[in-house]
Amino acid sequence: MRLKEILEAVAEGSLPPEKAEGLLQSGEVRYLDGLAVLDAGRAVRKGVPEVVYAGAKTPEQVARICAALVEPGRRVIVSAASEEHEAALREALPGIPVRRSGRALVAGTGEPQPTGGRIGAVCAGTSDIPALEEAVAVAREMGAETRSFYDVGVAGLHRLEQPLRELRAFDPDCLIVAAGMEGALPTVISALVDVPVIGLPTSAGYGLGGDGTAAILGMLQTCSPGLAVVNVDNGVGAGATAALIANRAARRE
Amino acid sequence: MRLKEILEAVAEGSLPPEKAEGLLQSGEVRYLDGLAVLDAGRAVRKGVPEVVYAGAKTPEQVARICAALVEPGRRVIVSAASEEHEAALREALPGIPVRRSGRALVAGTGEPQPTGGRIGAVCAGTSDIPALEEAVAVAREMGAETRSFYDVGVAGLHRLEQPLRELRAFDPDCLIVAAGMEGALPTVISALVDVPVIGLPTSAGYGLGGDGTAAILGMLQTCSPGLAVVNVDNGVGAGATAALIANRAARRE
Amino acid sequence: MRLKEILEAVAEGSLPPEKAEGLLQSGEVRYLDGLAVLDAGRAVRKGVPEVVYAGAKTPEQVARICAALVEPGRRVIVSAASEEHEAALREALPGIPVRRSGRALVAGTGEPQPTGGRIGAVCAGTSDIPALEEAVAVAREMGAETRSFYDVGVAGLHRLEQPLRELRAFDPDCLIVAAGMEGALPTVISALVDVPVIGLPTSAGYGLGGDGTAAILGMLQTCSPGLAVVNVDNGVGAGATAALIANRAARRE
Amino acid sequence: MRLKEILEAVAEGSLPPEKAEGLLQSGEVRYLDGLAVLDAGRAVRKGVPEVVYAGAKTPEQVARICAALVEPGRRVIVSAASEEHEAALREALPGIPVRRSGRALVAGTGEPQPTGGRIGAVCAGTSDIPALEEAVAVAREMGAETRSFYDVGVAGLHRLEQPLRELRAFDPDCLIVAAGMEGALPTVISALVDVPVIGLPTSAGYGLGGDGTAAILGMLQTCSPGLAVVNVDNGVGAGATAALIANRAARRE
Amino acid sequence: MRLKEILEAVAEGSLPPEKAEGLLQSGEVRYLDGLAVLDAGRAVRKGVPEVVYAGAKTPEQVARICAALVEPGRRVIVSAASEEHEAALREALPGIPVRRSGRALVAGTGEPQPTGGRIGAVCAGTSDIPALEEAVAVAREMGAETRSFYDVGVAGLHRLEQPLRELRAFDPDCLIVAAGMEGALPTVISALVDVPVIGLPTSAGYGLGGDGTAAILGMLQTCSPGLAVVNVDNGVGAGATAALIANRAARRE
Amino acid sequence: MRLKEILEAVAEGSLPPEKAEGLLQSGEVRYLDGLAVLDAGRAVRKGVPEVVYAGAKTPEQVARICAALVEPGRRVIVSAASEEHEAALREALPGIPVRRSGRALVAGTGEPQPTGGRIGAVCAGTSDIPALEEAVAVAREMGAETRSFYDVGVAGLHRLEQPLRELRAFDPDCLIVAAGMEGALPTVISALVDVPVIGLPTSAGYGLGGDGTAAILGMLQTCSPGLAVVNVDNGVGAGATAALIANRAARRE
Amino acid sequence: MRLKEILEAVAEGSLPPEKAEGLLQSGEVRYLDGLAVLDAGRAVRKGVPEVVYAGAKTPEQVARICAALVEPGRRVIVSAASEEHEAALREALPGIPVRRSGRALVAGTGEPQPTGGRIGAVCAGTSDIPALEEAVAVAREMGAETRSFYDVGVAGLHRLEQPLRELRAFDPDCLIVAAGMEGALPTVISALVDVPVIGLPTSAGYGLGGDGTAAILGMLQTCSPGLAVVNVDNGVGAGATAALIANRAARRE
Amino acid sequence: MRLKEILEAVAEGSLPPEKAEGLLQSGEVRYLDGLAVLDAGRAVRKGVPEVVYAGAKTPEQVARICAALVEPGRRVIVSAASEEHEAALREALPGIPVRRSGRALVAGTGEPQPTGGRIGAVCAGTSDIPALEEAVAVAREMGAETRSFYDVGVAGLHRLEQPLRELRAFDPDCLIVAAGMEGALPTVISALVDVPVIGLPTSAGYGLGGDGTAAILGMLQTCSPGLAVVNVDNGVGAGATAALIANRAARRE
Repeated sequence: MRLKEILEAVAEGSLPPEKAEGLLQSGEVRYLDGLAVLDAGRAVRKGVPEVVYAGAKTPEQVARICAALVEPGRRVIVSAASEEHEAALREALPGIPVRRSGRALVAGTGEPQPTGGRIGAVCAGTSDIPALEEAVAVAREMGAETRSFYDVGVAGLHRLEQPLRELRAFDPDCLIVAAGMEGALPTVISALVDVPVIGLPTSAGYGLGGDGTAAILGMLQTCSPGLAVVNVDNGVGAGATAALIANRAARRE
Repeated sequence: MRLKEILEAVAEGSLPPEKAEGLLQSGEVRYLDGLAVLDAGRAVRKGVPEVVYAGAKTPEQVARICAALVEPGRRVIVSAASEEHEAALREALPGIPVRRSGRALVAGTGEPQPTGGRIGAVCAGTSDIPALEEAVAVAREMGAETRSFYDVGVAGLHRLEQPLRELRAFDPDCLIVAAGMEGALPTVISALVDVPVIGLPTSAGYGLGGDGTAAILGMLQTCSPGLAVVNVDNGVGAGATAALIANRAARRE
Repeated sequence: MRLKEILEAVAEGSLPPEKAEGLLQSGEVRYLDGLAVLDAGRAVRKGVPEVVYAGAKTPEQVARICAALVEPGRRVIVSAASEEHEAALREALPGIPVRRSGRALVAGTGEPQPTGGRIGAVCAGTSDIPALEEAVAVAREMGAETRSFYDVGVAGLHRLEQPLRELRAFDPDCLIVAAGMEGALPTVISALVDVPVIGLPTSAGYGLGGDGTAAILGMLQTCSPGLAVVNVDNGVGAGATAALIANRAARRE
Repeated sequence: MRLKEILEAVAEGSLPPEKAEGLLQSGEVRYLDGLAVLDAGRAVRKGVPEVVYAGAKTPEQVARICAALVEPGRRVIVSAASEEHEAALREALPGIPVRRSGRALVAGTGEPQPTGGRIGAVCAGTSDIPALEEAVAVAREMGAETRSFYDVGVAGLHRLEQPLRELRAFDPDCLIVAAGMEGALPTVISALVDVPVIGLPTSAGYGLGGDGTAAILGMLQTCSPGLAVVNVDNGVGAGATAALIANRAARRE
Repeated sequence: MRLKEILEAVAEGSLPPEKAEGLLQSGEVRYLDGLAVLDAGRAVRKGVPEVVYAGAKTPEQVARICAALVEPGRRVIVSAASEEHEAALREALPGIPVRRSGRALVAGTGEPQPTGGRIGAVCAGTSDIPALEEAVAVAREMGAETRSFYDVGVAGLHRLEQPLRELRAFDPDCLIVAAGMEGALPTVISALVDVPVIGLPTSAGYGLGGDGTAAILGMLQTCSPGLAVVNVDNGVGAGATAALIANRAARRE
Repeated sequence: MRLKEILEAVAEGSLPPEKAEGLLQSGEVRYLDGLAVLDAGRAVRKGVPEVVYAGAKTPEQVARICAALVEPGRRVIVSAASEEHEAALREALPGIPVRRSGRALVAGTGEPQPTGGRIGAVCAGTSDIPALEEAVAVAREMGAETRSFYDVGVAGLHRLEQPLRELRAFDPDCLIVAAGMEGALPTVISALVDVPVIGLPTSAGYGLGGDGTAAILGMLQTCSPGLAVVNVDNGVGAGATAALIANRAARRE
Repeated sequence: MRLKEILEAVAEGSLPPEKAEGLLQSGEVRYLDGLAVLDAGRAVRKGVPEVVYAGAKTPEQVARICAALVEPGRRVIVSAASEEHEAALREALPGIPVRRSGRALVAGTGEPQPTGGRIGAVCAGTSDIPALEEAVAVAREMGAETRSFYDVGVAGLHRLEQPLRELRAFDPDCLIVAAGMEGALPTVISALVDVPVIGLPTSAGYGLGGDGTAAILGMLQTCSPGLAVVNVDNGVGAGATAALIANRAARRE
Repeated sequence: MRLKEILEAVAEGSLPPEKAEGLLQSGEVRYLDGLAVLDAGRAVRKGVPEVVYAGAKTPEQVARICAALVEPGRRVIVSAASEEHEAALREALPGIPVRRSGRALVAGTGEPQPTGGRIGAVCAGTSDIPALEEAVAVAREMGAETRSFYDVGVAGLHRLEQPLRELRAFDPDCLIVAAGMEGALPTVISALVDVPVIGLPTSAGYGLGGDGTAAILGMLQTCSPGLAVVNVDNGVGAGATAALIANRAARRE
């Protein structure tokens, strides 16, 4: 049972308000035998869609969970999905569109309801794109409009100018800036804009600190106030936080 | 020269628009002989006020910088200020109000211009208050309205109910949640609200990981999407990010 | 020679008590050529059954050790067992029941002797189940009664209510609470119960601290006294400690 | 309002049972202006007494909090108390007994109600005594009977024999074993007893890993199932967990 | 050209002493095209045989180097050798004995010249045997007599008695004690003997610190003076150091 | 005896060339009873002047060493010197100029011989100046010409323009770029110039990684080839390396 | 459009100087659909050639990028290239020379333009050769002349003499010294030469610190001023920095 | 009762051999009220004298323990002793010689009984002397003859020649080599001698890894077999191990 149906049932008088409140607060839990206990209430409470974390699951498990989740006109997100996960998913969901967005897959039909929130998505290097696009997939499913800019490295600052100009024209409510290696781009950009920036460190690096440690420490040590950080490669967290920011701003409009 | 003066000069025709643009983009740098180079342009670009980080400065240095910065009707923030910093500041600024807000001091007269942004500020234990109130001081100087709740520990979840009820009535644009030790409170609260949460880990802890490492790792590992993090005890960063979020939301209103 | 046989021999008069004491105290060591030296005395001394740690052994080695250990009416536990270990074990022990319990396998016939001790077993997410069920397998083989609750995440605290109610009705002597990521669940639960809690951190996480470091540091930093911790994914340690607690309590009854 | 008063009020009929239940479950919070928010309900819920952590507080703050807490026939525990804390406390509480127990102080009159639980307390070196005796103070205030053994180092195993013999005669429900440096003693003892052991690592060490890291890692890596661990120098956690174990066992008697 | 040949040549008068000295001090370097530069002088200077570290080499590389090194009546040691290395070696050296000794292989004919030095080799668990036997292989090739004792765990101290008695009868010049997990055995044994102990930490462990970190930190933190340590799994270092100790002692006889 | 004197003695015929070669290669060691063994040869071999590291010495020790070293027309550098070191030095060397240069002191008369090498010195924030100026002091004593630029933060990239323009006009042989916090400035600058950059991370930071770890990891992870790094706050190393680079370039002129 | 073409166009008058300046400063970006955004301007600005980092790319991606980059008379460098990368590259570029240089591949025709800069390249052990030769490949493509010396270990210092003598004859502008394990060689060599040394730590090691951590820390802790460091296995960074040093020196000639 | 007295009593017949054996094996424990439990048996068992670790004790505690321990003709060692410890000790023991040896103090009369064992003691820098001389004090009290060499840095290898020549003439049974910073000296020396080397890392360093971490990791990563290590600044461990080696060698003579 979903928010809209709950509210409609209240409107119809078939559901007493206090019971509806209970449903909304406690969530609705769906059990998928032995595989997962899904907190359908979270989508209602937070506006964050259900995300299946493929990292620690076999392709078969992911395919089975998604098959149980997908409904007409709705989509499910699979994060940290390998090519094997994708193949299993496509096989398990014949006829249903499966779209890759960086490390994530979006399976299902229909389109998210636009909220009016706007998010700029920027990354430093080619290898940061998968994490960034996972964030973008989550943000878009939460109804935010996104615009992406790739390969805006600090090693060539002149390349910042055009994206910044386009970003200012887009007038985003917040930015997601992904970077690996020394992770300096979010700091550099944050100093040039007046909206909040979500730093998304990635595991693209080498040698000492190359697993994302240098990048996340650099972002945490930023000398530019207005930058907050999610964990290494956590595109889901970056996208969800950014969309909450943007959607809140749009709600007040 | 400040934003308002710049804009007025443009309006008066005494300053060509293109020159004003240059001023706004490049900032206006004030040199304080041998002590600091102040980027007055940042306040204009980002809406983040000048903050004097007392952590690595002597009381005399802080007092001298603030004396140079304070102007009638304006305030300067001193972060990570010890009692010695405070005493030197009060002595250097006779007749000027100096107010302590956790780890921060706010010196000067007048009040910030309200933006309409609203921020809820919550902390887990008594020892998290100084970092939280530093964040609150920065957010208030950026024009946001704040409401604080102390000692909302996860070791007594029943204590969450009343603050959450009051927070929902306040309808904030985002939350700052400070916690040391295991740092679980931001995750717990983030799961129960639909606005973005800025996690502010503090160095209140003991033994292995007790310098804030456990707290920040816990927040970075959150299982609740919608939580982004600043560095340990970084009240300035938390307050500035939260105010950027809230002010952006208010701007779209 | 086992405890019962020893005691019977004492009762029969065929074994002098002082010699029996020596046997019981020093243990009886069985050599398995080149593979392992088994301390059969530990089961007698501590009431902890023999556990074969499969982590660093080939499927063939595990199968061979278990084949040597299994006796009618008894069971052996294999911890950290992969699917390959399981297959080899089933092939090596035709006709003997092999049951998977999370990361562990229990091979053999018969049932453990109930002690009357009671243990509640709770975990935060789906991916914590394998470690938790390994703990449960060890505790059950030590004679304790267990009851398991899955997916009791801190990101949805309302889900805590029903398990807590059921746990209180079960009246356990202690709890095992498994969690990965930020590892907050043991702290949250420990604050709500008046029995000791064994925190079992798991390696389910991502990015910085995602190998279980964030989870174990969080549990060690707990703000709720009454929580002690075992190492990451150490289901055997959690189960054995919990069973020692519960069995001790039952013994005093 | 305290448990006894609550129960008496219920018995008198002046407090409805359901309201009493609410009080007991939610706790009763006492505010100490600007210093602390005390969760008096925790003592009721968990049987763990109020502990004032002196680590991050000035002597004056500790003295003031204790003065507010002490009542006739009751005691308050101050953990991690320096000599300065002790002096301030004695000055603030004239005529009230203040007893040092390792890192802790116990201030107040009367004696805890014995529960019948029994705890053996063992430490490896002289410098582990303060953490151990802090644990003992907490356990004794929770009503458990304790017996302490000092300087039972693994570098002289023969010294283990007499304490172990005395411990077996004492028949404890669990053991607290404190050790710094390589932290091996809890493992060695755990292998020789059939009750649960709480490992209490201390910061007594030197060089690499000498801040308690080697000790806690060693205990977490124990090869002896039945040992759970608290954080470095966390005497309060060790004492509370041990007392919960012992009191639970005594309750079933 | 080897030490004996050099000395003989000097004795014969065919080699001037000063040239011999140069040879002995500077070593004799043999180049193996593109694969390795062998410092044959080290064997002469230090009495440590040439060891081929297989860890970072392909089976083919190892086989080729050994084929170049093996001479009648001499042996070469391959450390950290996998089964693939072993297979390639046996194939490359048909008719030449290849003996596995833990992680090491010893290929070649003949026997080392006994020096009279004696080394006791002890390990804690089954999984420590490979590192210990690698040490033993090196020590034996350096002419020392060794005696090994397995599975002497601290979790069953009674098992220490018989090995210690046998060790005292053997009267070794030093001991190698290998242990993983909490690494306590070297400390325990060092406290009971009056010869130097070389601690050999192994990577047999689990969870936090389970890669040998807990073991090596524990040995470095030892409370028993007379214990020195080599790196994790460094059997070659342990064996060479122990043999230098024992051979020195034997030389003074 | 110094290089010039050695060469003069050779020229005069009073010192045979082969003996001079020995002196130059082996250095000339001056013993300062119980305090230090000075390698006067290093100045000759490397062109790096004698530097007294004050970090681990008392003011009296530093003063005494310098008093022994100072000669007319020469200077000695004291690195990591506190105010107490400076006071003791001034008292011990009456009439001799002592000049502070960041963390360093330069005591003595005369001026270094210019080599023609040119070094640009840039730092990110006010608190990076002491480390940078220590580097500058060393470089200047090695004969290089330096030019310093302070407060060139990445949080205000427009501030880069003027220094870069001036630097290009200065045409340096290499740059020293000091930065704390996220340490991004060396990467940003390195991408814009065609001379080698020496990154000098400083311990100016806060929270996790704030002791210089974030800064040094960031510089090591640089995405801009052409940047090499010295240790945190190691102004001496940065200055010496930069001067070797610049002096080498000037030598080839 | 390349530097030469730009300059020719300026010379021809077909390109105004100010426009050329813009091109040179801002770079010329070539997009390779979905794979990479190439900053062709960097080669112009810094003199560092385009390097394709194969570490995080599939063989197919690397082959495709190189196929797009290679032009007659030019070469592209592939760093961190596996055998699979090499095979794919050779297949994708039939008829074009592909040369392996340690971890790197150099594909293309023609030879770099000599600059007159000279670099000595030294490594400690066989397993350091791949990183060193990657550095050499980059330096040679930047026009520097290089001379390599392998297996110059500190465990056999006599082996230093001949390479040092040859190096002095070669008269390099700087040295690259690669070492794994304890990483002492760069310090030892730096103390004996008067040119700057770039330390290149490698991941050749074992046990604690064996991933290059011990090597890089050792180089950063060097007691020999004049040594700067790049990250573990970062041959590209070492080669580019060394070539910038050498080419700068040659430019001043 | 001491070894000699025990043996004499056995010789006299006043002590049965089996009782003497028990005394020797179990040690004789002396209690010092509330301060320490002294294992006098260790001196008998291991030949390692009683060492009072001053690191965690007040000057008064150290003075009191030593006053209880000192007997005519015997000495006690105080390790890690500050100047305050020394002053208190001299005041508490009037008329008794107190000699400083690096970080250690030796208090008492008489001289140790020479064993004939010989130890070479070498350190890299001035700041390594205190740890080295602590080791020397322990070794000398165990009866070994020692010879010390200071300031034998790897940054000036020519300085190695003379000490090595003198060391070879001295013909030691083993070497102690102390070094901080990059810790390379033990590796360099170990490669040049044929006796075992005990590496003693010190906390003399700076920046990342400067607390002795770089030094100890470097020694553990040594490429020269025959080097074993004790913890940072652990002079007692180094001296005791070296003396056990040397005394064992002398015993076999």
